[in-house]
Amino acid sequence: MAYSIGVDLGGTNIAVGIVDARGDLLKKISVPTGSAHDYKILIEKIAAAVEQVTAESGLDMQKIRSVGAGIPGTVDPSGRAVIFAPNIQWEDVPFSDILEKRLGLPVQIENDAECAALAEGVCGGAKGCGSAVMLTFGTGVGGGFLMDGKLFKGCRRIGTEPGHMTLVFGGEKCGCGRLGCYEAYASASALKRQTARAMEENPQSLMWALCGGTTARVSGKTAFAAARAGDETGARVVDQYISYMAAGISSIINIFWPEIVLVGGGISGEGDDLLIPLNKKLKEFCYGNGKVPVPPVVSALLKNDAGIIGAALLGHDRTI
Amino acid sequence: MAYSIGVDLGGTNIAVGIVDARGDLLKKISVPTGSAHDYKILIEKIAAAVEQVTAESGLDMQKIRSVGAGIPGTVDPSGRAVIFAPNIQWEDVPFSDILEKRLGLPVQIENDAECAALAEGVCGGAKGCGSAVMLTFGTGVGGGFLMDGKLFKGCRRIGTEPGHMTLVFGGEKCGCGRLGCYEAYASASALKRQTARAMEENPQSLMWALCGGTTARVSGKTAFAAARAGDETGARVVDQYISYMAAGISSIINIFWPEIVLVGGGISGEGDDLLIPLNKKLKEFCYGNGKVPVPPVVSALLKNDAGIIGAALLGHDRTI
Repeated sequence: MAYSIGVDLGGTNIAVGIVDARGDLLKKISVPTGSAHDYKILIEKIAAAVEQVTAESGLDMQKIRSVGAGIPGTVDPSGRAVIFAPNIQWEDVPFSDILEKRLGLPVQIENDAECAALAEGVCGGAKGCGSAVMLTFGTGVGGGFLMDGKLFKGCRRIGTEPGHMTLVFGGEKCGCGRLGCYEAYASASALKRQTARAMEENPQSLMWALCGGTTARVSGKTAFAAARAGDETGARVVDQYISYMAAGISSIINIFWPEIVLVGGGISGEGDDLLIPLNKKLKEFCYGNGKVPVPPVVSALLKNDAGIIGAALLGHDRTI
Repeated sequence: MAYSIGVDLGGTNIAVGIVDARGDLLKKISVPTGSAHDYKILIEKIAAAVEQVTAESGLDMQKIRSVGAGIPGTVDPSGRAVIFAPNIQWEDVPFSDILEKRLGLPVQIENDAECAALAEGVCGGAKGCGSAVMLTFGTGVGGGFLMDGKLFKGCRRIGTEPGHMTLVFGGEKCGCGRLGCYEAYASASALKRQTARAMEENPQSLMWALCGGTTARVSGKTAFAAARAGDETGARVVDQYISYMAAGISSIINIFWPEIVLVGGGISGEGDDLLIPLNKKLKEFCYGNGKVPVPPVVSALLKNDAGIIGAALLGHDRTI
C-alpha cells in the first residue's frame, strides 16, 4: 500500500502523520512550532518531523509517495508556495521547493482549513456527499468548499475566505484590519470576547464563578456551560453567538447550496446545545420561502486529525 | 443558421426576442405583463409573443430550435419548473411542460439574473473570461456566477441568491422577510430609500430641487446627479451606497474570486461616478493583504437585452 504524509502547521504545534490511501491515520507526532517563525527553521523542523514519524512507524521512506502540508494562510494557485500566512509572519515562501529538495519527495500545500474540509469530504462527516462546506471556528473562521468531492479553491485557485465575508457592515474590527468580518463575530475568539463583555455587564452572572472570578479565564465553553446551568446571561451570549454563526452560514448556503454543512473547531464539541438551535435559526435565515430544503449542519468527525489527513490526501488531483 | 427565442419575464413587461447562435439579438418585442398573474394567462401571453416575434421577423417556426425564459424567481434543478417567483405570485408552476405543449418547441428556464449573467459571459462584458460574477442592482439584487463560461447554479442547482447574503446583521427588513440582506442596502430601491431619508434630514439639499420638492420623485439617479452638482448630502448618500455595494461584492470575491465582476441594472449607467469609487473601495475591502489582485468591476454591456439573450442561450449545456 502507498502512504502519504500530512503536515498540519499551526501557530502552536506542527502535527505530522502517516496516512494510507483510504485516509486512515496510522501514526502521528506533534512538535512545538516555537517562537522562531523564520521559514527555513520551520521547514527544517517539518522535514525532521517527517523523518521521525516515518522512522517511528517502521516504514521505509520508499513507501512514502508524497508529503502534503496545511498552511495557516493563503497558498498560491499551484499549491506550492505560501503567498502569506499572517500568524507565522510568512510572505512569499517557496515551501514546496525547499521541502522537496530536503526530502526528495513531491510536496503539495493548501490552506489548513481547506485541508480539513477535504479530509471530511473524503473520509469524514461529508463522505459520500457530492458537495459540502466545512467551516472551522477557532481563532478565526476558516472554510473549505467541496464540489463533486473535490476542493473548490475559488476561480483563481487562491482559496476561499468565508471568515472575511462582511456580517456587520461597519462593525467590529477584524484581525485582518477590516470591519465587521464574519470571523470578528463568529470565531471562538469572538465568542470569548462576547462572553467577557457580558460578564462585565452582569456581575451576578454564574460565569464569574465558572471562571474563578476573572475574565482572563473565559473560554469558548464558558457561556455554553453557564447556559446549561440555567444562567440567563450565558444563555443570551450563546443565543446571540449562534445567531451570528447562522447568519454567515446562511449567506454561504444562499449562494453555494451544499448538501451538508460541517462545523469544526472546539465549538463543535458543544454538540446538540449548538447544533439544535443553529439548525433552527438556519431554517429562518436561508432564502427559499420554506420551499427549498435547507442543508443540515452537523459536527465535523475527524476533529484535530482532519488537517493532517487532508494534507496527506493532497496531490491526488483533489482540487478544482 | 439556427435561431433560438429568449423570453425575459418581468413584473412590468414580457420581452421576447430572436437570437442567433452567436448571441446576436435579431428582433425583439415587448408586451405588458398586466395585472393578471395567473400562470396560464401569462404563459399564453408568452406563447403569443413568441409567435408574433417569429412572424414579424419573417422566419419560419421550423428555423427556431428552442425557447428559453428568464424567470424572476427560483427555478427547479431541471430548469423546467418555477419553484416560486414572489413578484408575480407564482408557486410550483410547470412552465416548460405547458409552453412546450403549446409551441411544440423545447423550452428551458432559469432565473432572470442568471440568464443575464450567462449572456454577458458568452457575448457581453465577461466574454473570454473563464470566471465572472454579474450582479444586477434593481428592485432587488440578483446575480449569476460563471465558471468556465457556464452558469454555476449552486450545488443543488437551484440558483444563487447573493442579494440575500447578510450585510448588516439584524439590520433593515428585506423584501424576503429577513433582516439585513445585501439587497436591503444595495438595490436601486434601497438607494431610493436612502436618498429620501437623507433629504428628510437635510432640507437644504439640492436633491429637493432635483425632485421637484417631493421625495415621491426620488430615483436611483437623484443622489448621483446631486453629488455631481456639488451637493454634500447627495455625495454622502452616494459614498455610503457604494460602500454597501462594495462590502457585498467583496464578500463574494473573498469566496469565489472571479476574474471580473460585472454590474448591471440602471445604476450601471452612472459609469465612472460609480465604478471609480467602487473599485477603490473594493481594494480596501477584499481579503488578500494587497498580495492578491482584486478583480476589476465593470459595467455590464448588453443592458436590457441581456435577459433575452441569456434565456435564448439556455439549452446549449450552459449550466453546471
